Amino acid sequence: MKLVTFTVQGRTRLGEVVGDTVYTMAWADGMTSLIRRGILPSRTWESFPLSSVTLEAPLRPGKVVAIGLNYAEHARETGKEPPAEPVVFGKNTTAVIGINQPITWHTSEAKEVDFEGELAVVIGKKAQRVAEADALDYVFGYTIGNDVSARDLQKEQWLRAKGMDTFCPLGPLLVTRDEVPDPQALTIQTKVNGKVMQDGSTADMIQSVRALIAYLSRYFTLEPGDVIMTGTPPGVGKARKPPVYLHDGDTVEITINGLGTLVNPCREITE
Amino acid sequence: MKLVTFTVQGRTRLGEVVGDTVYTMAWADGMTSLIRRGILPSRTWESFPLSSVTLEAPLRPGKVVAIGLNYAEHARETGKEPPAEPVVFGKNTTAVIGINQPITWHTSEAKEVDFEGELAVVIGKKAQRVAEADALDYVFGYTIGNDVSARDLQKEQWLRAKGMDTFCPLGPLLVTRDEVPDPQALTIQTKVNGKVMQDGSTADMIQSVRALIAYLSRYFTLEPGDVIMTGTPPGVGKARKPPVYLHDGDTVEITINGLGTLVNPCREITE
Repeated sequence: MKLVTFTVQGRTRLGEVVGDTVYTMAWADGMTSLIRRGILPSRTWESFPLSSVTLEAPLRPGKVVAIGLNYAEHARETGKEPPAEPVVFGKNTTAVIGINQPITWHTSEAKEVDFEGELAVVIGKKAQRVAEADALDYVFGYTIGNDVSARDLQKEQWLRAKGMDTFCPLGPLLVTRDEVPDPQALTIQTKVNGKVMQDGSTADMIQSVRALIAYLSRYFTLEPGDVIMTGTPPGVGKARKPPVYLHDGDTVEITINGLGTLVNPCREITE
Repeated sequence: MKLVTFTVQGRTRLGEVVGDTVYTMAWADGMTSLIRRGILPSRTWESFPLSSVTLEAPLRPGKVVAIGLNYAEHARETGKEPPAEPVVFGKNTTAVIGINQPITWHTSEAKEVDFEGELAVVIGKKAQRVAEADALDYVFGYTIGNDVSARDLQKEQWLRAKGMDTFCPLGPLLVTRDEVPDPQALTIQTKVNGKVMQDGSTADMIQSVRALIAYLSRYFTLEPGDVIMTGTPPGVGKARKPPVYLHDGDTVEITINGLGTLVNPCREITE
C-alpha cells in the first residue's frame, strides 16, 4: 500500500494512493497511531483525485535517527575513510516537512545548506536487541528523506546543522514493506533544478537496513513511527569543486524507485 | 506548583505535591498535553499520601536537547577549553525514566557508564527566535536530569552514548517557573552511594538558561513539553583519577535546591 497524509477541504486525513486517486482510510487518527495499532484499516468509498489534495509529511516521527557516512564513496568524498561502525546522530522531529513545503533558512544563521537524498525506514513495531535476520519484520514501510545539512554549522555535534526547522523533508508516500521486497535494491537519484547530483543505489550501503536496525536496537528502543535515515550516496554539494550549495528558488527532487519523488523548493530568509 | 506524574492503584495520573500529600489534578490527559493547554488545572478533592504512590518521569518530552561543556570547570576536567558556542546534541525520548527506576545497561555494549547531574528546563510555549530578555517566558518549569553517558561509546557523535534506554532520568518534580525566581541561583549536588561527586551551582553556567533558549530557538522550534538539559558541573566520574564509573547496585542521587532529589539505582545486565 502507498499511504499518504493529505489535506483536502481544510481537513488532514490518511489515505491510500491507487493510481491517480487517493482513497480515505477508515482511521480517524494520525499515521503514527495507525502504525502503532499494527493492523491496516481498509480504504473507504470516499476518494479524491490525487492532484486535488495537498500532500503532507506522511508522519511526524517519534524520533529520527540518522546514519552518517553509510556509503563508502560518500565517506571518501568528504575526506573520511568509511567508518568501521555506524555514525549515529539525531534530527529533530520539529524539522519534518512534506513534499512541496519549502526548505527554509535564515542567511544570518546558515549559508552552506546542502542536500542529502536518503532512503528513510519507518519502524512498525517495538524493536529491542533484534537479530539482523529478523530485522525487516520490524519495518512498517519506506519513504524518501532529505537529510538537509548546514555545512557551515556542521561541527563537533551535528544536531544544530541537521536539526534546523524544515531540514527533514519526508515523503511523498509511505510505502508498506510488502511492496519493497529488497530495500538494498533501490536507486536513489537527487536533482537540483533538474540537474542530477546524486545517482546511487542502496546496494552500496555499508550497513544494510537489516544491519542498522539490529545495531541501533542494541542501544535503544526503536518504536512504531520512528524513522531511520540510512545515509546518503555520493554527490552532495559540499564535495563538489567548487561546492554547490542550495539557494533561494532552487528545487530539490529526490527519486527512489517505487517510492515516488520528494520535491522541495528552497527559500532563504534575509533580514 | 510542584507537579508529578504518579501511579496509584494501577492508574497513572497527574498530581500536585503539597507537603507529604499528592492531590490529583482536574486533567485526564498526560503532562505534555497539560503543558500545551497553557492553563494549569486546579487540584481536586482526591489525595494520596506521597509515600503511597509511585512517581513516574514527570513527562515524556517531545524532544530532549542537551548542552555539552556548559560549565567551564567541567570542560577543563575533560581536557577541553570552554566552548565559544554551545555544543548542542540530542538524547532519545525513549531514554527517559523516572525516580527510582534503574539506569540499566548491557555490559556487552557499555562498560564506562557515567553520571551528569543537570538542571532540566521544560518548555512551556512554542519558541522561535526568541530574544534573550524574554526567554524565561517560554519556560513551563524545571526538573532534575541525569545526562547518563557511556564514555566508551562517546566518540564522534554522541547520540548512541547518551541516548541509550534509561540514560535520561528526569524528576521527581516538575516545578513551575514561578517557584524558581532565578534559574542561575541553584545548587546541584550529585552523590554516588552517598558520596558527593558533583557540588556545583547553576551560577557557573557558561550559557544561562535565557541564553540557551534564545540560541537554540534561532535554529529550531522549541515546543511545549520539550526539555533542555543545560549541562553538568565538574566532578563527573570520567575526569577522576582513577575514573569512577557506575556499577551494578550503585545509587545516583542528584539534588537541586527547590526541585527535590532524583534517585536512581544502577543495574548492569551481563549475559
